[in-house]
Amino acid sequence: MEGLRDVPAQWLSSDGIRKGIDTVCQESALSISISDGRELSFSLGITMRTPGCDEELVIGLLFSEGIINSSDQISDLTIHNDKALAVIPNINQDNISQFLRKKSSTSSCGICGKESISNLLHIHGPKLSENINILSSVINSCTDELRKNQSLFEKSGGAHACGLFSLSGELLFSAEDIGRHNAMDKLVGKVLLSSKKAFIESFILFSGRLSFELVHKARRAGIPVLIAIGAPSSLAIDIALEHGLTLVGFTKNNNMTVYSGRGRISH
Amino acid sequence: MEGLRDVPAQWLSSDGIRKGIDTVCQESALSISISDGRELSFSLGITMRTPGCDEELVIGLLFSEGIINSSDQISDLTIHNDKALAVIPNINQDNISQFLRKKSSTSSCGICGKESISNLLHIHGPKLSENINILSSVINSCTDELRKNQSLFEKSGGAHACGLFSLSGELLFSAEDIGRHNAMDKLVGKVLLSSKKAFIESFILFSGRLSFELVHKARRAGIPVLIAIGAPSSLAIDIALEHGLTLVGFTKNNNMTVYSGRGRISH
Repeated sequence: MEGLRDVPAQWLSSDGIRKGIDTVCQESALSISISDGRELSFSLGITMRTPGCDEELVIGLLFSEGIINSSDQISDLTIHNDKALAVIPNINQDNISQFLRKKSSTSSCGICGKESISNLLHIHGPKLSENINILSSVINSCTDELRKNQSLFEKSGGAHACGLFSLSGELLFSAEDIGRHNAMDKLVGKVLLSSKKAFIESFILFSGRLSFELVHKARRAGIPVLIAIGAPSSLAIDIALEHGLTLVGFTKNNNMTVYSGRGRISH
Repeated sequence: MEGLRDVPAQWLSSDGIRKGIDTVCQESALSISISDGRELSFSLGITMRTPGCDEELVIGLLFSEGIINSSDQISDLTIHNDKALAVIPNINQDNISQFLRKKSSTSSCGICGKESISNLLHIHGPKLSENINILSSVINSCTDELRKNQSLFEKSGGAHACGLFSLSGELLFSAEDIGRHNAMDKLVGKVLLSSKKAFIESFILFSGRLSFELVHKARRAGIPVLIAIGAPSSLAIDIALEHGLTLVGFTKNNNMTVYSGRGRISH
């Protein structure tokens, strides 16, 4: 299965030593470049991702970063030998400038290439729907539904997952990756490539913890509700409160903790 | 407590709704710059980290990235208003060039500023000790010991932790952070600042999953054994095998799975 790899392993337990083959989640580099199809061309860098849905990953990332507003803006996307090149003929010059400024800062392992903290927190997106209502019982049932779709996690124990659900709890799209932001980018890319423009009246359920980046990506897409099985960070809560996005953590065993935007959830 | 923040929250459960104050892990930006104290100065970018042990984080990161080989090379380190500046008087010009090349690639959220995949996998470090032996029972007892030292996780449910243990299972140093690579950098920084040069005959126990980055950091420091509670990635295993580093995952309830360097563990 794509995204997984079998490796030799030894299990040490009270029963002794067993040798065999274990399945682990793949982590490999994808370098991403964009071009206007004429003279302009530059590298956005490298992301460590789980192979699979690379097209969705690139499209979701370009959207999240404000380079494109829809997948139609990409005239050609080639992905070969872990290198992706997206051709965006009428690329917005301001977006390029913003990227070049980002490029001029950076960067090392674990360091993200934003040139200033204020830039980092510069987050935009469409108005979030206020008039939506989700039953807490629906959210609770979605955790099982997401789990059933976590095939990478099921086999490797090492992948994040996120699902986009309708307000009545139907799973619309899901994605998995070894990196949390990649999983979200793949999900966003899937929606952008589909005919269902499902962002506005929906919610995201995320398998792990919530960093500010994930709130940023949800906000950018106009998704009003972000729910996690794990803990949110302080900055994730701050941004959710500032933008009126509903943020929920520790969704497990019919319990959940609401940090922001409680009005969208009925209990 | 540093690294934590109290926020208003609502708990929704089968018992109804309870309002109160929850404690979450802090996530905030630290921008890191280096200078030679004269004309050379540049930004390494921004890392999202949990405040606390910032000095150790910066020193550990500079070491992991090959900018310094010991903390003595830093003549001055000021950290103020989430900005760190390290003065390295005799900074190696090759290291600067390497960094400037990295700078010229990059970068967006979730994208790491390495200009090529081969560069990404360019990992060096001192020779790893072959003649060390750890009892699997010692490793199993260390999971409890690490857990006792996870005060951020205990209060927030949202932080990674790692501990450096002696071969007999004594906890030498530990560190926590919302980012897994930061936790490792803080740990490495603590060791570099101490008089105990404890890397060679020791092992690291990590609370979560193992990406290639963490193997890179262990390899760079010369730590021969890396053990995790969670799953390793395929690339983490590849690098461990290539460098002869012992890699263990899923260490829980007296079980563990060994993927590389089984010879250093007795069972």
